Amino acid sequence: MTELASHPTQAASAWFFDFEQALRAHKLEAAMALFDADCYWRDLVSFTWNISTQEGPAAIKAMLQARLADVQPHNFQIEGQATEADGVIDAWFTFETAVARGRGHARLKNGKCWTLLTTMTELKGYEEKKGAQRIKGAEHGVHPGRKTWLEERQHEQATLGFETQPYVLIVGGGQGGIALAARLRRLGVPTLIVEKNEKPGDSWRKRYKSLCLHDPVWYDHLPYMPFPDDWPVFAPKDKIGDWLEMYTKVMELNYWGSTTCKKATFNEARQEWEITVDREGREVTLRPKELVIALGVSGYPNVPKVPGAESFEGDQFHSSKFPGAENYRGKKAVVLGSNNSAHDICAALWEEGVDTTMIQRSSTHIAPSESLMELALGGLYSEAAVKSGIDHHKADLIFASVPYKIMHTFHIPVYEEMKKRDADLYGRLEKAGFLLDFGVDGSGLFMKYLRRGSGYYIDVGASELVANGSVKLKSGVNIAQIKPKSVVLTDGTELEADLIVYATGYGSMNQWLADLISPEVADRLGKVWGLGSDTPKDPGPWEGELRNMWKPTNVPHLWVQGGNLHQNRHYSQFMGLQLKARYEGIPTPVYGQAQVHHLR
Amino acid sequence: MTELASHPTQAASAWFFDFEQALRAHKLEAAMALFDADCYWRDLVSFTWNISTQEGPAAIKAMLQARLADVQPHNFQIEGQATEADGVIDAWFTFETAVARGRGHARLKNGKCWTLLTTMTELKGYEEKKGAQRIKGAEHGVHPGRKTWLEERQHEQATLGFETQPYVLIVGGGQGGIALAARLRRLGVPTLIVEKNEKPGDSWRKRYKSLCLHDPVWYDHLPYMPFPDDWPVFAPKDKIGDWLEMYTKVMELNYWGSTTCKKATFNEARQEWEITVDREGREVTLRPKELVIALGVSGYPNVPKVPGAESFEGDQFHSSKFPGAENYRGKKAVVLGSNNSAHDICAALWEEGVDTTMIQRSSTHIAPSESLMELALGGLYSEAAVKSGIDHHKADLIFASVPYKIMHTFHIPVYEEMKKRDADLYGRLEKAGFLLDFGVDGSGLFMKYLRRGSGYYIDVGASELVANGSVKLKSGVNIAQIKPKSVVLTDGTELEADLIVYATGYGSMNQWLADLISPEVADRLGKVWGLGSDTPKDPGPWEGELRNMWKPTNVPHLWVQGGNLHQNRHYSQFMGLQLKARYEGIPTPVYGQAQVHHLR
Repeated sequence: MTELASHPTQAASAWFFDFEQALRAHKLEAAMALFDADCYWRDLVSFTWNISTQEGPAAIKAMLQARLADVQPHNFQIEGQATEADGVIDAWFTFETAVARGRGHARLKNGKCWTLLTTMTELKGYEEKKGAQRIKGAEHGVHPGRKTWLEERQHEQATLGFETQPYVLIVGGGQGGIALAARLRRLGVPTLIVEKNEKPGDSWRKRYKSLCLHDPVWYDHLPYMPFPDDWPVFAPKDKIGDWLEMYTKVMELNYWGSTTCKKATFNEARQEWEITVDREGREVTLRPKELVIALGVSGYPNVPKVPGAESFEGDQFHSSKFPGAENYRGKKAVVLGSNNSAHDICAALWEEGVDTTMIQRSSTHIAPSESLMELALGGLYSEAAVKSGIDHHKADLIFASVPYKIMHTFHIPVYEEMKKRDADLYGRLEKAGFLLDFGVDGSGLFMKYLRRGSGYYIDVGASELVANGSVKLKSGVNIAQIKPKSVVLTDGTELEADLIVYATGYGSMNQWLADLISPEVADRLGKVWGLGSDTPKDPGPWEGELRNMWKPTNVPHLWVQGGNLHQNRHYSQFMGLQLKARYEGIPTPVYGQAQVHHLR
Repeated sequence: MTELASHPTQAASAWFFDFEQALRAHKLEAAMALFDADCYWRDLVSFTWNISTQEGPAAIKAMLQARLADVQPHNFQIEGQATEADGVIDAWFTFETAVARGRGHARLKNGKCWTLLTTMTELKGYEEKKGAQRIKGAEHGVHPGRKTWLEERQHEQATLGFETQPYVLIVGGGQGGIALAARLRRLGVPTLIVEKNEKPGDSWRKRYKSLCLHDPVWYDHLPYMPFPDDWPVFAPKDKIGDWLEMYTKVMELNYWGSTTCKKATFNEARQEWEITVDREGREVTLRPKELVIALGVSGYPNVPKVPGAESFEGDQFHSSKFPGAENYRGKKAVVLGSNNSAHDICAALWEEGVDTTMIQRSSTHIAPSESLMELALGGLYSEAAVKSGIDHHKADLIFASVPYKIMHTFHIPVYEEMKKRDADLYGRLEKAGFLLDFGVDGSGLFMKYLRRGSGYYIDVGASELVANGSVKLKSGVNIAQIKPKSVVLTDGTELEADLIVYATGYGSMNQWLADLISPEVADRLGKVWGLGSDTPKDPGPWEGELRNMWKPTNVPHLWVQGGNLHQNRHYSQFMGLQLKARYEGIPTPVYGQAQVHHLR
């Protein structure tokens, strides 16, 4: 390291100068001397053609050894000014590889690298046509026989899936499929979305009517087209539905609604999928090269098999089918479950004057929305963050820069603070018998989301109803039996009921893959989601990244896109680039392909 | 002025310090001493509740005398850094009045003000709910009987115009009506648009199929929601149509398609309009307080009455009804006119192999698109401008800061340059017999647009066809007579024809007002558009602003919104604020109400 390194930016520049020298010369020892013993390198497809984190010097060295000749990293440049706080220098940088341009973030401690993030932003020669590179639109000059934009678009829509085949078929036209299709559209990769609902946005519209987003607006933007600046903090479901429909149209996505997938088979000889779909009653066979499952990381609704359920004379629904509370005014409802949907539905029922009981089977993490916004998300996704220069693009990268291995250590203090701040509510909930937790290690909501995708409620009001008894609570029990007009709990209590709602979550996406393709292929792909944290519902061994998400799986040409709006926005960028590279025939050797440890 | 004024920002700060002192103390002589003898103050509703320019010291002094006590201007603050070039200091500033906040721009010469622009940005206490002030969306907590966003929106749509009345009715649902309605929606003013076409965007979709915007994308954004950064430079008409339809939906505008206005009367006793409309065959009477005409500054299509027209055996259309060239392959067409539509249609016909003749009646200004973009618009509306910090918000204010009285002096050098740059094309056009002009004073396209709204073609290729004879040209003539299979020109030439297109423009909007309301009211409102420049089609006396546009007219409660996308975006802000003030009962004494000098 040079002697100039007194200012953080100079220090970071010096580090990258040395780093680049070492990499260019393939001097791995020199490169590794620049890393702290406690070090992490997270790469989003720029070095590894994978989404992977190398944890510790040995793993980093092995990755460099394998990839350096191919990647040819160079032209590392500090972006803006580096900053220093608590002995850690934060630096943004850009870089190039043989085939791509990238952007990254580093944290340096004592002149050594603690965390490094490298991400691909664009493939050289295949940049998006935006800004100064945008198309003209009107082709000036005169062109006999020219087609208008409308004619070309109509021709594409009429022929895609018939005379021409999509390169990528996306199954599932919710936010995940739509975000990815927008990326692929920009990159010029022929893509088709198939969706069982009639229109984009219907998967939101069809949910219970009181539903609003639980994440704030700054976290929820789709790629390329941010929400207007008067968009509500928590958008109502139908407004999001309309936005998705509009977005699909103006982004010119190819979207087949009312289309269900019947069967998918990979034809090894032709190296393409054969996918039979039912499009509005007409059977069509699609032959894409790549198949993306974008069904929201879940499988079928979990509906517990309870003795006597078929004898029930009232209505019973899984939460995903719950039509709304209006029809149950003055009646009695039992809601099984205690996560987000259960709470939302209990509140909606209570608001309509329904006598409502929540059945809590096991402990739940409650994160009051205000506290979550201020303590957990505010620094990255808020109006204040935007004002301080952290828009959602930058926030996504900061978010991505924290290795999963140590992410919980960033979160634990947040929830320690939340416990103090919301002590009154937590105390009253416990008094009412509610079983609380903050995750096994106190790391709270987001870690639960990553590890198991469940086990929490972002409190937007229903916890008060539980605490004050407006919504009745039975905790530590389950439903043992259902009678024509009541449910009997495992502690013997019998509750009269006109309505039962099973807010019991969803199974694994693999159920769905097993039916669509085959149980063997579903098993070859393995469990989806979770980090391997060896915490409840997230068995080890440690994976270091979300299983199978947005990266090559063990089933060639089969991909999984999904997550919340933030993840769909950010990771669709890397899914898009991976698929574009394959479309253009750019070699994409995958480093560190994850093994499958859990079948479903 | 203080002695510190060596840096432009210090000089501008010192000027505004002195200016504010003088205004606060109502010392008009002191204030006027700060202005150059050659001075202009353009105000967009912040001082005058009008869109008006005071030209020269006497006019400025009179305005201050009349308005100062009421406006109470204060808190002038320089925004960013002032700059100096060629002895002129450019400064941005913010300020407040008794009821509003504003933003402005000043040009100072030798320490005195040459041009001053003041604009209102928001009314105090009635700010738009955006950014940190945005609504929550989800109302946290529990609210028995709460309505969802969808229920409220559906209720509004079902009742508006029936149980409840819009405060503002906008007649015309093109870009002008839509932009204004979006502003009013944000400001919470109940508004309804009525439009004769079925859907938003149809007024674009229904035009000739080769139509693309003639202005580049940076100039064309709607309020609040910019086009994505891959939007084409020149958007095709159907893409704009889709965007307008989407925009109307996501902005939650109340829009009645397939609705025609039959009759409008102002009820003096009730101080409201009574407007009979036909909505999909059902007659509805609407009772708004304010009526906005947003029909694009034109009236009915001009179709010249030519002897024998009724005997013509081919097709004849006004350009607004021209369906496209496909059906005329191998046939003969005559296009009357030589402005934008005439050129576009001639090119489309030629591309389809139609034998096409353009009839040029009088001289036309040709501005090659590339040159126009680079020489005239590039500094304000281009990717380069955006990169240098001039986004369209800032560009709109810079554009607005040039007083109309001296605007031509800013434009003449641009067109001098264009004459040189495109000398080859111009030479070949003249050789082909085309009658060229650059406006009577050489000030080119935009001044022609402001003065008369016609007389030019933004060349996107058709001029080459005229120059090389692909499109035949007859200039300095008109059609004298139409026979069953031909047209006879005023010079005696007879041209065979299967198709005649009248690209002959539109009449005055007053024709339409005369029919809808009454000829008397149309005359009371007077001529719309034009500056009073005493140039062809824009008779004097000098008005200094566009007649009747976006400001109070001589008919109380009757307003005109329109223009190109840039104007609709920018001036809708001021229309919105004027209407909001009236809706909230804020006094809006209009200073300098323009007189009517020309009836139609």
